[in-house]
Amino acid sequence: MSRKIKLGILGGGGDSLIGVLHRVAANMFDKYEIVGGVFNPNFKENIEFAKTLGLNSSRIYEDYESLIEEESKLNSSEKMQVISVLTPNFLHYPMAKKLLENNFHVICEKPLTTTYKEAIELQQIQKEKNAVFAVTHTYTGYPMVRQMTKMISDGIIGDIQKVDAQYLQGWLNPIIHDKNKRSSTWRLDPEKSGSSCCLGDIGTHAFNMVELVTGMKVDKLLADLNTLYEDNQMDVDANILIRFSNNAKGTIRSSQIATGEENNIRINVYGSKGALKWEQENPNYLYQLSDDRPLQVLKPGHSYNSKISLDGTKLPPGHPEGIFDAMGNIYKGVARAINNETYDKAEFPAIEDGVRGMDFIEKALDSNSKGNVWVELNK
Amino acid sequence: MSRKIKLGILGGGGDSLIGVLHRVAANMFDKYEIVGGVFNPNFKENIEFAKTLGLNSSRIYEDYESLIEEESKLNSSEKMQVISVLTPNFLHYPMAKKLLENNFHVICEKPLTTTYKEAIELQQIQKEKNAVFAVTHTYTGYPMVRQMTKMISDGIIGDIQKVDAQYLQGWLNPIIHDKNKRSSTWRLDPEKSGSSCCLGDIGTHAFNMVELVTGMKVDKLLADLNTLYEDNQMDVDANILIRFSNNAKGTIRSSQIATGEENNIRINVYGSKGALKWEQENPNYLYQLSDDRPLQVLKPGHSYNSKISLDGTKLPPGHPEGIFDAMGNIYKGVARAINNETYDKAEFPAIEDGVRGMDFIEKALDSNSKGNVWVELNK
Amino acid sequence: MSRKIKLGILGGGGDSLIGVLHRVAANMFDKYEIVGGVFNPNFKENIEFAKTLGLNSSRIYEDYESLIEEESKLNSSEKMQVISVLTPNFLHYPMAKKLLENNFHVICEKPLTTTYKEAIELQQIQKEKNAVFAVTHTYTGYPMVRQMTKMISDGIIGDIQKVDAQYLQGWLNPIIHDKNKRSSTWRLDPEKSGSSCCLGDIGTHAFNMVELVTGMKVDKLLADLNTLYEDNQMDVDANILIRFSNNAKGTIRSSQIATGEENNIRINVYGSKGALKWEQENPNYLYQLSDDRPLQVLKPGHSYNSKISLDGTKLPPGHPEGIFDAMGNIYKGVARAINNETYDKAEFPAIEDGVRGMDFIEKALDSNSKGNVWVELNK
Amino acid sequence: MSRKIKLGILGGGGDSLIGVLHRVAANMFDKYEIVGGVFNPNFKENIEFAKTLGLNSSRIYEDYESLIEEESKLNSSEKMQVISVLTPNFLHYPMAKKLLENNFHVICEKPLTTTYKEAIELQQIQKEKNAVFAVTHTYTGYPMVRQMTKMISDGIIGDIQKVDAQYLQGWLNPIIHDKNKRSSTWRLDPEKSGSSCCLGDIGTHAFNMVELVTGMKVDKLLADLNTLYEDNQMDVDANILIRFSNNAKGTIRSSQIATGEENNIRINVYGSKGALKWEQENPNYLYQLSDDRPLQVLKPGHSYNSKISLDGTKLPPGHPEGIFDAMGNIYKGVARAINNETYDKAEFPAIEDGVRGMDFIEKALDSNSKGNVWVELNK
Repeated sequence: MSRKIKLGILGGGGDSLIGVLHRVAANMFDKYEIVGGVFNPNFKENIEFAKTLGLNSSRIYEDYESLIEEESKLNSSEKMQVISVLTPNFLHYPMAKKLLENNFHVICEKPLTTTYKEAIELQQIQKEKNAVFAVTHTYTGYPMVRQMTKMISDGIIGDIQKVDAQYLQGWLNPIIHDKNKRSSTWRLDPEKSGSSCCLGDIGTHAFNMVELVTGMKVDKLLADLNTLYEDNQMDVDANILIRFSNNAKGTIRSSQIATGEENNIRINVYGSKGALKWEQENPNYLYQLSDDRPLQVLKPGHSYNSKISLDGTKLPPGHPEGIFDAMGNIYKGVARAINNETYDKAEFPAIEDGVRGMDFIEKALDSNSKGNVWVELNK
Repeated sequence: MSRKIKLGILGGGGDSLIGVLHRVAANMFDKYEIVGGVFNPNFKENIEFAKTLGLNSSRIYEDYESLIEEESKLNSSEKMQVISVLTPNFLHYPMAKKLLENNFHVICEKPLTTTYKEAIELQQIQKEKNAVFAVTHTYTGYPMVRQMTKMISDGIIGDIQKVDAQYLQGWLNPIIHDKNKRSSTWRLDPEKSGSSCCLGDIGTHAFNMVELVTGMKVDKLLADLNTLYEDNQMDVDANILIRFSNNAKGTIRSSQIATGEENNIRINVYGSKGALKWEQENPNYLYQLSDDRPLQVLKPGHSYNSKISLDGTKLPPGHPEGIFDAMGNIYKGVARAINNETYDKAEFPAIEDGVRGMDFIEKALDSNSKGNVWVELNK
Repeated sequence: MSRKIKLGILGGGGDSLIGVLHRVAANMFDKYEIVGGVFNPNFKENIEFAKTLGLNSSRIYEDYESLIEEESKLNSSEKMQVISVLTPNFLHYPMAKKLLENNFHVICEKPLTTTYKEAIELQQIQKEKNAVFAVTHTYTGYPMVRQMTKMISDGIIGDIQKVDAQYLQGWLNPIIHDKNKRSSTWRLDPEKSGSSCCLGDIGTHAFNMVELVTGMKVDKLLADLNTLYEDNQMDVDANILIRFSNNAKGTIRSSQIATGEENNIRINVYGSKGALKWEQENPNYLYQLSDDRPLQVLKPGHSYNSKISLDGTKLPPGHPEGIFDAMGNIYKGVARAINNETYDKAEFPAIEDGVRGMDFIEKALDSNSKGNVWVELNK
Repeated sequence: MSRKIKLGILGGGGDSLIGVLHRVAANMFDKYEIVGGVFNPNFKENIEFAKTLGLNSSRIYEDYESLIEEESKLNSSEKMQVISVLTPNFLHYPMAKKLLENNFHVICEKPLTTTYKEAIELQQIQKEKNAVFAVTHTYTGYPMVRQMTKMISDGIIGDIQKVDAQYLQGWLNPIIHDKNKRSSTWRLDPEKSGSSCCLGDIGTHAFNMVELVTGMKVDKLLADLNTLYEDNQMDVDANILIRFSNNAKGTIRSSQIATGEENNIRINVYGSKGALKWEQENPNYLYQLSDDRPLQVLKPGHSYNSKISLDGTKLPPGHPEGIFDAMGNIYKGVARAINNETYDKAEFPAIEDGVRGMDFIEKALDSNSKGNVWVELNK
């Protein structure tokens, strides 16, 4: 019953942080076996890196095309079933496309692609192939985000009337004020990084979180972006008004020049019967507010949590869970999908979330370039 | 040297909470003697209330006109020098106007008036009379707000590049969803409450805080207001984009339907060299962030604080200060101004802050009604 | 009905911090009128100081004996009814004794006296005279301490099984390591400060808090005191084991060499059905724990609070209350007692609390000097 | 260079939580390959469980004796190098003993043994064999505990003068008050659980933490234990006074009847130049206090941290680390030791820490049974 899923990885070699995160997550619930991949564009370094992981070199490939070709020859019990795509953003599209076309499942880092058009195209192939396709908005994997999502969908806080979301970082501050640095940072180079810096890198996480936990779609947005310096073309700060199809309104604020901030994601959702608040840097607390009762603070692992929240907690209450646990939970959900087990769609963000994210980025850029006007998202 | 300042009060009788706040503040530093006033429109209740304060009835008046007339007859050592105006908003203008014209100093609750035009008119008279005129944006009186203001003006965080401010309450939530209640609440009745509910009541506090602590003027704004129900005319929620004359951008978010929130004011200011964050419900902590050093948490009363911050702290560190201390500090500053002692303009918000606040309210309403467009504030 | 209570004050002149605290508290609810006293041992400075308070000099006296003599001659509607004793510790006993003997009510700073014997003597006179006698353990006046006390007495947390209390300060740290400083600080001089430094100054607060909130008496204790240096005779740090008559056990830890701590009082009470936790530096939060429900955080002013808690809150939820509010609430309770109105004994610590405090200090010193053995407190 | 270390596991099968923790930790840095073990006493379940881990059954054994026998036959490149012992406490000693005698390295759960005598015996064999032997006091693996330890050893807070440590849980509360439950819980059965419940299970963690971070040895202790009910023989709550060889004093408080507490470990260390505070449930914050500067809050991953702290952080600041990271860091250190690489002894608790822990337990029981007297720990 429990043969492990064969996992291949594209990217994530060398000092890659995202590589560590995905490998630990894959191992966390004993559901995957990493069998090979292309960790590095340089084949020699690729092989060296694979050794440090304890992999033999037989399934380490020169490039993703060879991987697809060779793996496709293997019988189904040996073949890689799912590939994690951790490469630079512009490679997500061609890799994911070819993987889907060749019947692999895909776990893809965000942003899904570099354009909405590409995203839609991928989604179409994914549907045809009926492939499992996860987009790793990691933060959605925390047990208390899942609890928040479930409580809202259960109507605990009533109809949503206000949403306040942020993703604030400060890491660009030491770069942005130095002309040389800002002109030589790849994140600020449209050639390398695509049309957006802040929105693409982190705004899209906040947007995904908003739609995930509320269970509602953002109808339209009005964005005010900041490049801070005239010689910088890329957004480094974004203040965005959002509206939902009911009367709810809100904001998404994301920034990479919020000096001193690390990874400060917060989401507050206010409803007619109560409110829920969560923040990523202290992920094991979910705050429930109401008109007339004391503030309640929910924590992971307690029996008052929902099944999907408890599913992501391995130790008794009081043992802090971190970012690895969040990603581990996503991999666990993907494993269920691949194994055709029952799972809740809230267990991992899927390709439609990736598509929405691309639409968000393009519409926010559009709103800003048109002078901060309302732009509707696609239905 | 230390004769106490003679203080009269208009409003604040009965169960008025604001009345308690002003009286405690006036007594806090032994600078004022409350000698009389018009606490209540009903003269009998007025007299009764004055007794509970231990005042004899000789200087309790029928109305503010009588107060002005009678007090003006007294010699200067007896006469009320300053009058606190705590009446409903629409009375601020006529009362303050007549008080100024008759050479009284004024301490006025916010919002200063019901229209920008009235505010400008008051300001003109105040200038002619060279009167002391304070507008009680109470929260500015906290020692750590003063410290934040001073640190920013001293350049500690460098050039400001991002401002994120909020004032979130939830008290309207139990009212707004009930058609009867929402049609019978005076705050939601434009006849009684003026053109704005949320902006006028609390948005203006957040706006004042933004301009106070940054030392910068908001250049223009773009506001998205929410009335939640079609049969409600008044704003109960506001998401506002702001821009300053340098490249700094930001938001002011204020709400009275942020379910479960009490008095959640936060202001984060991000600069090129660091950031400062403060929140009203835990007012004795000021958070200083930087690119590469540990977070620092400043608290009142320590010698590392500036003079103007320390001036507002009476006990050693670790003795929590509350809202009464904040208002007490404002009254202390006003006393210095009345006594022609040296004072720092940051010691109390003055009439120009009240004028700015009225402009902010009108421009935000204007932006919203025009479909969420940028509107410039007056210089 | 509402004639204000005539209040006299002994001590608290000049730069005295405790003087500010008592005066603001007396004024907070409009229940007292400060009519005079002896603020300062130097009569000239005494008069000067009285002027800064706006008092005329007719009831400013040379010493407390004169005050008692002269005030006793006044008719009952004029005479000071209650005297606040804010002088150095060794003066509490003679002053309070003579005041009681001459039919004044007394509000006395802690510690009540310098010996248990004196305390018992005062208590006897107080009983004979049926005087109101408050001992200002200020921290008991916070609304959430009152709420905690009431919830425990209502059985909300069941039978108490564990108590963990602390009062940690660090102010002696910069003094204790310097031989000259430690030999010249009055707090460390037994001639001036009595037999104890840390226990008398702050340990007694923690002990009082323990007995107040639990509603139980400490049966016996075992104390380990630290003087840190051999040439220092006075306790600067205390770790004390405590036991109650049921099977509950606990600790009281108090220190003045907990480097960097300000006024860190915490009390945690664990019962069979739940637990309650409170800390002085964030006094507006009361934490309620249970086996299987989310943590609840209670805040002042909400209708879920008990009457005695709400009685001490003047503004709506979200307006932070500080140390002045705590003392103000104590003065309010004392006013009720003096005016023969109904009051709850939890509204202010009385002479029996002062007596218990003296017993605690002496028994802790005794336990320590005997080599850390169990010593029973008096019943 | 990077061949993975062959790891065997004893225990941790089925629903074991500790099993998950060790497996994830072993995988975290790609240093280990789990090759087999005895997960479960029932061989069939053992095999089943191994399958769920993706292990083939060739190196799944009937019992630890068979494992030792069979593995010893393998050549050195195949043989298990290190065995993790996760079985019930009473099995630690016989298993570890035989493993050491047969030249395996050992990673052992705490408490090391059931008696001090056994611990000493193990230590002797470990020395003879020069084996790597880790005792998994997991909490010591957090980056900020390592940072705290390093800062203290670097003299940042000067000479230590006070230590305040706690480990509070509430899980026994729903059991202890029910006579049937308390007589049928294995933790409260001396036959199954050894001489101590609370001390052995969690007190020893707090004790280890105290000695680790201070770098000092506890000289003597005085313990007051609570069994709460007469028909319960086992300690469920402990208040312990401790003294060090310098003049520092302190407490260790541990409890399993601190109702509602989860895993509330705190350690505060006060020195002549500053203080450091840490708590396990919010493990990514280290608080540095001083006499006259703002509180500083250190977080993982920043360049201001020491090398040994940074070694345990894989992602940029703001990505919360949890309990898995702490155990992962311990396994990483053990891997270095096994591979004869340079490592810092603070990277993992070793057998001498386990020995100290057993001495602590026995001495605390001794102190209590003798009527709460001082008992010296072995040097």
